[in-house]
Amino acid sequence: MIKQPYLLFLGDAPDALAAKVAQGVKTWRPEHALGQYRMEGCKADLRIGDLGIREAREAGAKTMVVGVANRGGVVPDSWKRVLREALEEGLDLASGLHTHLNDDAALAAAAKANGRAIHDVRRPDRSYPIGTGRTRAGKRCLTVGTDVSIGKMYASLALAKELADRGCNCDFRATGQTGILIEGSGVPVDAVVADFMSGAVEWLTPDNAEDHWDLIEGQGSLFHASYSGITLALIHGGSPDALVLCHDPARHEMRGLQGYPLPSLEELRGLALKVARIVNPACEVVGIAVNSSGLDEDEARSYCEEAEARMGVPAQDPIRHGAGRIADSLLAL
Amino acid sequence: MIKQPYLLFLGDAPDALAAKVAQGVKTWRPEHALGQYRMEGCKADLRIGDLGIREAREAGAKTMVVGVANRGGVVPDSWKRVLREALEEGLDLASGLHTHLNDDAALAAAAKANGRAIHDVRRPDRSYPIGTGRTRAGKRCLTVGTDVSIGKMYASLALAKELADRGCNCDFRATGQTGILIEGSGVPVDAVVADFMSGAVEWLTPDNAEDHWDLIEGQGSLFHASYSGITLALIHGGSPDALVLCHDPARHEMRGLQGYPLPSLEELRGLALKVARIVNPACEVVGIAVNSSGLDEDEARSYCEEAEARMGVPAQDPIRHGAGRIADSLLAL
Repeated sequence: MIKQPYLLFLGDAPDALAAKVAQGVKTWRPEHALGQYRMEGCKADLRIGDLGIREAREAGAKTMVVGVANRGGVVPDSWKRVLREALEEGLDLASGLHTHLNDDAALAAAAKANGRAIHDVRRPDRSYPIGTGRTRAGKRCLTVGTDVSIGKMYASLALAKELADRGCNCDFRATGQTGILIEGSGVPVDAVVADFMSGAVEWLTPDNAEDHWDLIEGQGSLFHASYSGITLALIHGGSPDALVLCHDPARHEMRGLQGYPLPSLEELRGLALKVARIVNPACEVVGIAVNSSGLDEDEARSYCEEAEARMGVPAQDPIRHGAGRIADSLLAL
Repeated sequence: MIKQPYLLFLGDAPDALAAKVAQGVKTWRPEHALGQYRMEGCKADLRIGDLGIREAREAGAKTMVVGVANRGGVVPDSWKRVLREALEEGLDLASGLHTHLNDDAALAAAAKANGRAIHDVRRPDRSYPIGTGRTRAGKRCLTVGTDVSIGKMYASLALAKELADRGCNCDFRATGQTGILIEGSGVPVDAVVADFMSGAVEWLTPDNAEDHWDLIEGQGSLFHASYSGITLALIHGGSPDALVLCHDPARHEMRGLQGYPLPSLEELRGLALKVARIVNPACEVVGIAVNSSGLDEDEARSYCEEAEARMGVPAQDPIRHGAGRIADSLLAL
């Protein structure tokens, strides 16, 4: 559990994209984004207040979140000086960088000396059980994609927000680095040892009230040769009652896989339901989350209409159109 | 790479089943099973010669393989004294125990002092790349099961032996602890970090001669909620040209999963081919390996005949009937 609220560290981000983790926190948890910390030369700006470390601490910040990607996998000394100061001023650190902050002897020593925690969210911080396939109380919805990096996290977050805004009993369940930093907890399923993947997802989505929904962040794709095993473990560990299909109509080759076209929505529905029903025979597809970032307004609208007519469930871009009609479909299950 | 031949350590095995790893080595690699080392009270007997450690060393043994399961996860001090003596006499150690021998300070120190290696085959001893989905030269055959622990390793080993006996260019590719100890190398795929599962299998089955067959040991089952993700990573990383379906007709509930019936052979074929063809569109089912250990001779024969008629590919129990007809079918692809 990462303590909130956050001071978002943007370092010397060369552009807005480099700070997309911080942007995700600000978009989905504005109440936890107390301020941003920018170094000289930083070109990203979340349009929340700039705060110094002591200032942030006095305003109630509990954790400095590294919300920026480092170039070439190296954490610059200039960042480390700031991170160390944060520990000394009484903030915890949380980071999704490939380079683990806990592996830096000076930072680890500063954390220990000051009684602070360093959360490297790419590394599991506990062990998980073997999956059991046991039916759990409560409801679960998982996003599955025709490809990786296609909007599954955003779709799950948008649905969780929509349900929460309607007063529904629900939780976003993070399974990736950015999701964990946004939510403050979760399981980095791609970093879990193979034997324990589905058990980790079961642990993340335990028995709950009958009217409770877990909105589980999907990972990978059943059709993506690099990560399909993680996706299947999420489906079997998550035991979803509802699936939301995620697709980007402007993408024609799978990310990182030369020569692999994306499957159709029908192919995704067919395979995902087939494997999901092994564990939860009642599983249904309730909607389609369209990532229409590559289309203009008219194209996006007409693609969604066409997909909805073909597939028989609401299709919308959660960023452009909200997720209200997918949420209606989910709650009507 | 574990150096062969082996001295097989049976410890004080309470029965033959406790020594099944050693039995597997002796069955499949008799030329590497130089002798057995039994302690007082040992009830297992491989019916190969008993050898002392120095005697085995002088006869050419390179590695003492722990071929026995320990009770309760604890390695007794009486075993450790023998293992240490083996290191001091110039043998390496190899073990598939859950408790890693490398984590025992005294054994690790003895290995270092004597220039010996300790292979804990449950732990990957290298890092693996991310899977690419790239088509590789050469042919690959993977065993897939209606359940876990149903005979996939034996079927792959029997096919590899059958092909080798016919002079075919082939390799058994081990993906589990016992298989790795038998073959002397492999990837413990259930112990690999999720992100690298399919890449590890690609690494294990690289480009090869056009007429070369990899016989890849399957793991888990697409239908088993605990391990299905590992199975899918094996299918997508292994990119098989041929699948052999493994089934035990006497088993009616999946191992470790309450209330889950086994799928039919038709269901397994349908799902396995569907996912395999995402990466290798030419993939075919070439045979059915029946684990008929729960049937008598007549029942086994009539089950295989019936399955063969239904499924249109040879069905045989590799232990009872050999794997010759499945090999014919494989080579006819």
